[in-house]
Amino acid sequence: MPEFFNVLPPADAFEVVRANVAARTEPELIATADALNRVTASEVLSPEFLPAFPRSTMDGYSVRARDTFGASEGMPAYMEVVGKVAMGRAVDVNLATGQTAEAYTGGGLAGGADAVVMVEHTQVVNDTTIEVVRSVAPGENVVQVGEDVRESEPILPAGHVLRPQDIGGLMALGVTEVNVNRRPRVAIVSTGDELVPPSEKPGAGSIRDINTFTISSLVTQAGGVPMPQGLAPDEFEAQREAAVSGIAQADILVFSAGSSVSSRDMTADVIGSLGEPGVLVHGISIRPGKPSIVGVIDGKPVFGLPGNPVSAMVVFGLLVRPTIYLLSGCPEPPEPATVPARLVRDIASQTGREDHVPVKLSRQDGALQADPVFGKSNLIYTLVRSDGMVTVPLDAGGLYAGDEVSVRLY
Amino acid sequence: MPEFFNVLPPADAFEVVRANVAARTEPELIATADALNRVTASEVLSPEFLPAFPRSTMDGYSVRARDTFGASEGMPAYMEVVGKVAMGRAVDVNLATGQTAEAYTGGGLAGGADAVVMVEHTQVVNDTTIEVVRSVAPGENVVQVGEDVRESEPILPAGHVLRPQDIGGLMALGVTEVNVNRRPRVAIVSTGDELVPPSEKPGAGSIRDINTFTISSLVTQAGGVPMPQGLAPDEFEAQREAAVSGIAQADILVFSAGSSVSSRDMTADVIGSLGEPGVLVHGISIRPGKPSIVGVIDGKPVFGLPGNPVSAMVVFGLLVRPTIYLLSGCPEPPEPATVPARLVRDIASQTGREDHVPVKLSRQDGALQADPVFGKSNLIYTLVRSDGMVTVPLDAGGLYAGDEVSVRLY
Repeated sequence: MPEFFNVLPPADAFEVVRANVAARTEPELIATADALNRVTASEVLSPEFLPAFPRSTMDGYSVRARDTFGASEGMPAYMEVVGKVAMGRAVDVNLATGQTAEAYTGGGLAGGADAVVMVEHTQVVNDTTIEVVRSVAPGENVVQVGEDVRESEPILPAGHVLRPQDIGGLMALGVTEVNVNRRPRVAIVSTGDELVPPSEKPGAGSIRDINTFTISSLVTQAGGVPMPQGLAPDEFEAQREAAVSGIAQADILVFSAGSSVSSRDMTADVIGSLGEPGVLVHGISIRPGKPSIVGVIDGKPVFGLPGNPVSAMVVFGLLVRPTIYLLSGCPEPPEPATVPARLVRDIASQTGREDHVPVKLSRQDGALQADPVFGKSNLIYTLVRSDGMVTVPLDAGGLYAGDEVSVRLY
Repeated sequence: MPEFFNVLPPADAFEVVRANVAARTEPELIATADALNRVTASEVLSPEFLPAFPRSTMDGYSVRARDTFGASEGMPAYMEVVGKVAMGRAVDVNLATGQTAEAYTGGGLAGGADAVVMVEHTQVVNDTTIEVVRSVAPGENVVQVGEDVRESEPILPAGHVLRPQDIGGLMALGVTEVNVNRRPRVAIVSTGDELVPPSEKPGAGSIRDINTFTISSLVTQAGGVPMPQGLAPDEFEAQREAAVSGIAQADILVFSAGSSVSSRDMTADVIGSLGEPGVLVHGISIRPGKPSIVGVIDGKPVFGLPGNPVSAMVVFGLLVRPTIYLLSGCPEPPEPATVPARLVRDIASQTGREDHVPVKLSRQDGALQADPVFGKSNLIYTLVRSDGMVTVPLDAGGLYAGDEVSVRLY
């Protein structure tokens, strides 16, 4: 029986990808409004100062701060109201000593003013006079020019995944287009004589292809563009043809099934035949998912994922997801959502192997409990019926009922 | 000065929405392959058994289990190999006592077989004979018909957000179309005399509109369809017109800015003029974000978010996001991603108010640290320069340096 070749822990297997894949997808300039979740291809510098004029942070009155010094409830400062600074207009009021003008949150200050008194700390005496009952320091309740961002200041690094507030932040500076890396394209070849498309009724001994769709959805979630290549039977030439075509169109090639070492498993041979350096890792020290392949062909990463859906999802998360981010220019993918929970049953493992176990969450007296869903890992609905996964680290012999664990939500 | 009306904690404010909004968006039948992140509109029942035939979970030999009883390394059972069950084909081999046939992972068993012996527990003697060195129980290494899913079994509840494995699970059963609720449409009206579109250079006293774009991105993240209605000045009629048009097209209406109680803030009046019951909550006991409005007009939820970007994002997460999920048919939105971290500085708060504080994460000796980004909450880049938020609960007076906190990642 053939043997696995270069079995590595998952983190080391990903380092093999990182070390052998230098290229990032090319940059493209797109509308900032459409850039949510895209990855910046270069550092973004601010083209201007933000704010561009001193802005009040409160509704109230702009003043020369020294005119309020010593003001209190018992001894208010009387000030003359000489106008207001309307929102969105040029400032056309200037203050002399003892004068003030109405100011609005986000609006400008009167000429000569250096602070704002909150409306709550004033009392209207008559149409042109107010009492100020608390003193303000120079700059109080004011955002200064460039206090948020200075011109030419770096505002976003390269390799940053754009979030809603980043989109808003770019718009605030008039940056309506942004330079991002193209979404990596991921070709998916699903192999096996037993597979039929989901729209067909499987004949005797056949089943529907599901991994093409699960993997496509995972690619989309990770910011890639899935490119399903259809089904390939368990024949070397057919698989090689699908792979050659897939890798020509895509940045990453993923095989589903055929990654083990039995006579039917020819993914490693197919990858080996595609180019250099070929298969670099065959076997990952995890359960489930051991029979996985990492290869590189002419600078493009190639993965062989096990056919069983639980294994495929685990290995995708550990290797393919970070590779999609890496090619997008983001060396550290965003953290997946996790929740803390208490384990309700032991999980056996062995040191030197990382275990990933689906769990079902439930609430008991307000606290989250994680119940491992053991079942055969080739049951498809194990993943549908669970809420997330718990990891038993490489150096642990297992986890125990009562342990506090971090559940990675799907 | 006008007062806030019906100030509520955020959870209670959301309950007001839940109690006053009965309708869900209508269901639509879409391709399962396109249904990632969509919400099921009805329970899905399995149309068939999965698997449809008994499948081997191992490469090896299918056998009548009783023929192996007592087999061991020292006293192997000799069995006659009478054929193999090819992948994706009807079974054309039947076993008599003492006979066996090759089996493959995921493939069928020979007629009469009830278990599979792993190839590792066999030894080839010659072309037609193997030794079996370990006994198997009936059913061992076999997935039985319907063991994964039984016909008519509920496989997904209504209100379920579809994940990659759910897409695969539906495909496995030939469910290539799925009934989901239409994505809720969210009309966004951004108000303020000082606003100009981001593509324009702001004149004196003006700034670029950013909340339209931040809120649109947040709507997209929550599975809704943003429908920006453009900018409305601080004039009652103009705002009312934008609101009437927005609410006619959308399922939810969001006002940005104008939700405070100053003279410029007329959102509450505009909402009140649109229909019944109008404004239900004015003021949320949180910081930042207190001057927020929850209303309902003819069954459609309406929100007034503060103009300051930090407040707008906090209130969106607490009220608008769960409302989008609610209208999609999902009563409990997916958990946001969180990471545990140690707080490096105190955060002051007061009981009876929930505080949301942006934090910057860093790693110190391998452990995550959360550093609160205080700054004025109307600085736009506070959110760009932070990694997530920490919540000080309603009943706490603050958090202390050294506390373990859960950071909600953006």
